Amino acid sequence: MNAPTVLAFDVFGTVVDWYGTIRREVGAMGLGIDPGEFALAWRAGYQPAMQRVRSGQQGWTSIDRLHRSILDGLIERFGLHDLDETARAHLNNVWHRLDPWPDSVRGLARLRRRFTICTLSNGNLALLADMAKHGGLPWDLILSAEVFRAYKPDPRTYLGVCDVFSIEPQAMMMVAAHRDDLAAARACGCRTAFVGRPGEYGPNPPAAHVEPAAPLADFEAPDLDELADQLGCPSP
Amino acid sequence: MNAPTVLAFDVFGTVVDWYGTIRREVGAMGLGIDPGEFALAWRAGYQPAMQRVRSGQQGWTSIDRLHRSILDGLIERFGLHDLDETARAHLNNVWHRLDPWPDSVRGLARLRRRFTICTLSNGNLALLADMAKHGGLPWDLILSAEVFRAYKPDPRTYLGVCDVFSIEPQAMMMVAAHRDDLAAARACGCRTAFVGRPGEYGPNPPAAHVEPAAPLADFEAPDLDELADQLGCPSP
Repeated sequence: MNAPTVLAFDVFGTVVDWYGTIRREVGAMGLGIDPGEFALAWRAGYQPAMQRVRSGQQGWTSIDRLHRSILDGLIERFGLHDLDETARAHLNNVWHRLDPWPDSVRGLARLRRRFTICTLSNGNLALLADMAKHGGLPWDLILSAEVFRAYKPDPRTYLGVCDVFSIEPQAMMMVAAHRDDLAAARACGCRTAFVGRPGEYGPNPPAAHVEPAAPLADFEAPDLDELADQLGCPSP
Repeated sequence: MNAPTVLAFDVFGTVVDWYGTIRREVGAMGLGIDPGEFALAWRAGYQPAMQRVRSGQQGWTSIDRLHRSILDGLIERFGLHDLDETARAHLNNVWHRLDPWPDSVRGLARLRRRFTICTLSNGNLALLADMAKHGGLPWDLILSAEVFRAYKPDPRTYLGVCDVFSIEPQAMMMVAAHRDDLAAARACGCRTAFVGRPGEYGPNPPAAHVEPAAPLADFEAPDLDELADQLGCPSP
């Protein structure tokens, strides 16, 4: 079995902390709402919105636009009618400003010395580029569902990464904090690495978002720095 | 007129020195041929190969594969039958290892502080990612004809960049050492910056590859560092 040459990373939750960043930004706006509840509600709209695109009910729509559509619903629900268009557009862009987990930049920098590291996120390219600049994420290449016009877990995304790099699936390893993402990559013949992020949904995660302990991936690590250890990457 | 927010860069010749790098690598192989002539002959096959794809005579084919097809012809022509498959594959990958011009890394780093900087190259994504890692090119995003499934000067490439960033064409500025690339971008409504690279084709450039002095672009600079000056970017 040859070693993988390309590591493809899920981003939201795996590399960056969407809950913590949104909770903090919304909290700082002083809107009189529970900012953690708001963050969870925004994220809860994510899979259903993508599912409308996956099912063909809605044509190709970027995550920026899906996030905005969910946000407009939340503004009604949370009674935030005072937010003007500028404030809404700025708030929607919080997804471009998500902070990395404390280990992410160091872990990626180490992994990058041995592997080609790329994103494979459902986030759109502009979002991922802004986020990388904001957080100093040292990607070799930013890839997105937008490039393949299909949202994960569609096999065209995982196999699309292999096609970009002209490699067989077993030379690509998907890195994610979500078992379903890894299962879909594995079904395409790719390797898998699970990174545990128990705080992804905040201190009291909804039961549906507690990741099961199994099935085990090829590698299991508590963070990206330890994944670099397991993959034999030298310290910086 | 609003200032541009995104700078999209042509790469071969504008940011990296394909002639000098290939001449040096081929020279070091000791093949008993004129390495500068070899570099020019390889590049001479580039536009005709892409034209076969543009015209529909050939389906979508990556630049890596087009380069390899041209190389196989040159191996015949230059009588290099002793090169085995490993050597041919390694030589074809020289396009992934092209060195930046001396001003490129510093100029891009300065421009990146004020603008979003991306590639818009006919080179494929894996080639551009390897090249960025090799030369330390600090792109915010690597975009390629491969993403848009169309080769420059097809308008879908320039307008594709605008679509990725959700900007109007006048908010995008194309940066290139080639007047025809800039003319195509301008026809789409984009801004233009010309960077003179008189040494792109070596010390004795074929007449067809001497860039005309006009029409003038919105900005005209001898290198990327001076372009950063003209665009008001602070020194590092």
